[in-house]
Amino acid sequence: MQIGIVGLGRMGANIARRLIRGKHEVVVWNRSSGPAEEVGKEGASVAKDFDDVIAKLKAPRVVWIMLPAGQVTEEAVKEFAGKLSPGDIIIDGGNTHYKDDVRRAKEIEPKQLHYVDVGTSGGVWGLQRGYCMMIGGPDAIVKHLDPVFDTLAPGLGDIPRTPNRGNRDSRAERGYIHAGPAGAGHFVKMVHNGIEYGLMQAYAEGFDILKGKNSEELPQAQRYNLDMADIAEVWRRGSVVSSWLLDLSAAGLAQHPTLENYAGEVSDSGEGRWTIEAAIEEAVPANVLSASLYARFRSRKEHTFGERLLSAMRFGFGGHVEPK
Amino acid sequence: MQIGIVGLGRMGANIARRLIRGKHEVVVWNRSSGPAEEVGKEGASVAKDFDDVIAKLKAPRVVWIMLPAGQVTEEAVKEFAGKLSPGDIIIDGGNTHYKDDVRRAKEIEPKQLHYVDVGTSGGVWGLQRGYCMMIGGPDAIVKHLDPVFDTLAPGLGDIPRTPNRGNRDSRAERGYIHAGPAGAGHFVKMVHNGIEYGLMQAYAEGFDILKGKNSEELPQAQRYNLDMADIAEVWRRGSVVSSWLLDLSAAGLAQHPTLENYAGEVSDSGEGRWTIEAAIEEAVPANVLSASLYARFRSRKEHTFGERLLSAMRFGFGGHVEPK
Amino acid sequence: MQIGIVGLGRMGANIARRLIRGKHEVVVWNRSSGPAEEVGKEGASVAKDFDDVIAKLKAPRVVWIMLPAGQVTEEAVKEFAGKLSPGDIIIDGGNTHYKDDVRRAKEIEPKQLHYVDVGTSGGVWGLQRGYCMMIGGPDAIVKHLDPVFDTLAPGLGDIPRTPNRGNRDSRAERGYIHAGPAGAGHFVKMVHNGIEYGLMQAYAEGFDILKGKNSEELPQAQRYNLDMADIAEVWRRGSVVSSWLLDLSAAGLAQHPTLENYAGEVSDSGEGRWTIEAAIEEAVPANVLSASLYARFRSRKEHTFGERLLSAMRFGFGGHVEPK
Amino acid sequence: MQIGIVGLGRMGANIARRLIRGKHEVVVWNRSSGPAEEVGKEGASVAKDFDDVIAKLKAPRVVWIMLPAGQVTEEAVKEFAGKLSPGDIIIDGGNTHYKDDVRRAKEIEPKQLHYVDVGTSGGVWGLQRGYCMMIGGPDAIVKHLDPVFDTLAPGLGDIPRTPNRGNRDSRAERGYIHAGPAGAGHFVKMVHNGIEYGLMQAYAEGFDILKGKNSEELPQAQRYNLDMADIAEVWRRGSVVSSWLLDLSAAGLAQHPTLENYAGEVSDSGEGRWTIEAAIEEAVPANVLSASLYARFRSRKEHTFGERLLSAMRFGFGGHVEPK
Repeated sequence: MQIGIVGLGRMGANIARRLIRGKHEVVVWNRSSGPAEEVGKEGASVAKDFDDVIAKLKAPRVVWIMLPAGQVTEEAVKEFAGKLSPGDIIIDGGNTHYKDDVRRAKEIEPKQLHYVDVGTSGGVWGLQRGYCMMIGGPDAIVKHLDPVFDTLAPGLGDIPRTPNRGNRDSRAERGYIHAGPAGAGHFVKMVHNGIEYGLMQAYAEGFDILKGKNSEELPQAQRYNLDMADIAEVWRRGSVVSSWLLDLSAAGLAQHPTLENYAGEVSDSGEGRWTIEAAIEEAVPANVLSASLYARFRSRKEHTFGERLLSAMRFGFGGHVEPK
Repeated sequence: MQIGIVGLGRMGANIARRLIRGKHEVVVWNRSSGPAEEVGKEGASVAKDFDDVIAKLKAPRVVWIMLPAGQVTEEAVKEFAGKLSPGDIIIDGGNTHYKDDVRRAKEIEPKQLHYVDVGTSGGVWGLQRGYCMMIGGPDAIVKHLDPVFDTLAPGLGDIPRTPNRGNRDSRAERGYIHAGPAGAGHFVKMVHNGIEYGLMQAYAEGFDILKGKNSEELPQAQRYNLDMADIAEVWRRGSVVSSWLLDLSAAGLAQHPTLENYAGEVSDSGEGRWTIEAAIEEAVPANVLSASLYARFRSRKEHTFGERLLSAMRFGFGGHVEPK
Repeated sequence: MQIGIVGLGRMGANIARRLIRGKHEVVVWNRSSGPAEEVGKEGASVAKDFDDVIAKLKAPRVVWIMLPAGQVTEEAVKEFAGKLSPGDIIIDGGNTHYKDDVRRAKEIEPKQLHYVDVGTSGGVWGLQRGYCMMIGGPDAIVKHLDPVFDTLAPGLGDIPRTPNRGNRDSRAERGYIHAGPAGAGHFVKMVHNGIEYGLMQAYAEGFDILKGKNSEELPQAQRYNLDMADIAEVWRRGSVVSSWLLDLSAAGLAQHPTLENYAGEVSDSGEGRWTIEAAIEEAVPANVLSASLYARFRSRKEHTFGERLLSAMRFGFGGHVEPK
Repeated sequence: MQIGIVGLGRMGANIARRLIRGKHEVVVWNRSSGPAEEVGKEGASVAKDFDDVIAKLKAPRVVWIMLPAGQVTEEAVKEFAGKLSPGDIIIDGGNTHYKDDVRRAKEIEPKQLHYVDVGTSGGVWGLQRGYCMMIGGPDAIVKHLDPVFDTLAPGLGDIPRTPNRGNRDSRAERGYIHAGPAGAGHFVKMVHNGIEYGLMQAYAEGFDILKGKNSEELPQAQRYNLDMADIAEVWRRGSVVSSWLLDLSAAGLAQHPTLENYAGEVSDSGEGRWTIEAAIEEAVPANVLSASLYARFRSRKEHTFGERLLSAMRFGFGGHVEPK
């Protein structure tokens, strides 16, 4: 089907490509012209501005916005909402907070515009592996867009099928779900990222304990000098902890066994934070997901005021001075 | 090669079977005769006691002990150490604490016996998928046993190879590693299980937040009624959180979407606990792995004394009474 | 000075009383007449509605709103803002989110009304011990209200003075601070409550470990049957962990050594939750404060979906069934 | 009564002094002669070696060992056990692991020697405030030593008495308890220190959130520049979080409001670690106490291998590079 892709960053450009390869008619726009021209060469029609995107599409138009979450996306949604016609569809494929989706869907409803939120996982690998998509929006509209999602999704591939799924919705097996009304797609994607932080931190702590087995905290006789790269590799083979994140760890460790190419200052994005806020709103305990987020916060600091306060208290009650 | 398997529980019996299928000459012993007879029918030679195991093997003998960790294994190792001859090899394939391995290796050294510890992951799936093995012991002995490990391991299979491994030890790719001297195998397996707890808890918390999105803690308008089984399924397809544990979750949820067949009282084994002790010995922070263990502890209690103390304090300073 | 107290719950009534005893001229209003009549007998002038509160006060009027946080307070602030005159002062003494304070202060500024937020700690003990107050608002207004705060605060009392305070603001020593502009009072009070949760949970876990030393998880020979009440008492005497919360614990345990009068379902209020949100906004790690909140969440549940999912995974990889 | 004090570090010397002031007959020994001479001038009899300690005491002798926990104390106990006579008493007043107490008590039992373990809190303030003591050992022996404990303890002082204690053991009110058999004293002291870590970290995180309210993570308009010293001070006055540790924090902050005199590298001692091990043995969840310990571990590192692994994974799935 015909679709406009607005924003050709790493994700947007590859989504456009995968759609082109799937024989969809793709109109693209990007702030800077380079990426647009590139995708243009691969078969997309390049629009020069938002009006041109609209002009190049036939009603009911489908505009997939793939811009950095926050203000930029908010403004693009607003602008398209002002220019599109009844029956047209706005898709936000970025990392928007689901409460913003709920609000926007309501805001554009009086104009008879439809809003669909798509949480996408797959990162730089999506073009090749396909995108895992979690979708929120009205039932009929999500069904209407099915050819797009079907093309972008990984499909059954060679991943073994889960037994006992019976008559369940086959879209899940093919890599996308219609999670619920507006916001539900981004909500599920948000929790996905929260889990991602937890999984990553579980590996991080485990490898720290393996590495630490050779540290000076231990008497010489109790140390092992373990091979991080080989351990990651062997766990990929029949162990309970095998995963795609472990595959990536094994690849990283094979190339740089001491990871000397990284400093260890770990960024976090909105979704890890929002997951904790959602847990708190629901009164769900989430020690692991919180600790994973906090480990990243701490990784970006030298020392905290709180740590100095601990030293001050220790001096106060015990006369302890810090090690020099 | 020739090998004795002592203990035919779920793991031991399947290890024996996989070795038989791999054309090794297997002598088996089990406390109760049923499992031994079964494996006997598949080609093993059945020994009637430990002496008979020894009698049926040619020197240098290899005895793989696969008994429940703790006292039972300890006594079996002791007894074999008393009966075997110089050059013979004792393998502990169970879930022994690595410090016991270190001690035992030293204890049997004067008798010129060799001790090898093998941490095995793969559970009930090992017969079919192969066992992921982490091995500790003397270099020459581990090399000598290579045919056994090679048969038991999954091999390259159809798992994509990690790039940039270059000249690295190919055993890791085939599913087993020689981690280091005595105890190193069980140490790596121990941390593996610690990580396993962390990964599991990350999924558990994430699904709790998904499920809780429909809870009465939230205003009606902010609720989603999400499909747990489909979410688990879709994440298997191209998402960052795909893993074998997620595959199992998807399978469990497909069969029982509300998991009403489980109460939620979650056991823990020694290895999760020992991982935390190792972290503490090394002064490595491990919030995620600890929280994962504690979540299991708490799942087995109704209420704690500490929780009642919180209520007592709240009453003390604010006159707060508990909800009825 | 003259002041109106709107809302005579546990806190409001005692604040009114302490002001009356301090020779202030107090006008009170309460939704139900009982509490108002009682405080009236002690010297307050009882207003029959908000207009009457305003009528009974001379300009510049001071109205202290002491209602349950949330909608009720919001509406009272709005209503007074509509009825008061330029130069009048609205104080919110409840547990409002500091961001609401910031918003309200801005909203009423065009009317030349002043907004002051006061976080108060002291609970049911405030009448007797005085209230610890954290105040946000314009400098001149907070100064103008000083007689009120000075009366409500505990004063120097017999608490030993902190050395080296030099020329620092003496209000802190007397039990109140002007923390900053609008919202700063409630922000500091919010973090105060976050810390409170953490302190309480530290004691709760410690006493759980003391109590658990007699549990069936341990071999008989490793158990101690410790006296919780005496331990709490002795720690009040010269130990590093002495505190007011410990005093309250000791009192609760002396009366009910097994705390059999509590179930252990522990409530939480907004401030504990908001503290975590503030930590996340600031990218400050807060494992202890989060875990304290989560322990309360968990205390109110029987089992979680996540715990059942753990059991499902354990069954999946190891055939483990739950203990019956 | 007559007592030997072996080891005159900060704690031992002041314990000797408090006993001398309480009219006990004190024999002291110290590895280096300086401290012994000093205490000698204040009235102690100085022994030149362990034999001399024994010679200077009348049977049944009481020897209080106050040496650094671990090997030094272990050897001193062994040596005295070899030299003392039936009926004599060895007290370990240091920070010994309670399991070592249990073992030692059994080891010296055949010699008819008695073993008493005393956990003491009070730090550098004990001489002045008295020591809070938790005692393990045989009932008759602890009773026999009562004059010593009574002198060392703070006594009732001016701390308000806990209501409803009725006929309970008055020793708790006076600052010492007989917690149970051998090891029980050090076990209770161990948990005391575990709680201490938790309390300290609760304050540390809270003050971090207060401090962070002025950080660049926040938009300018959402910042407050709060006064840490005044906040700590005001909370000492009638608030729920008042405690001795808060007093110390207020003192530290009054002197150095930015705590620039500390780096924030926080040590931990055995007892915080052992508390977690005890929790794990008892299957008691202890997220707060663990997180407190881990925060100290992390405070002493620059970056962890695990943090670098997180960066490696993030690069792997998303092409994310670290901020530079």
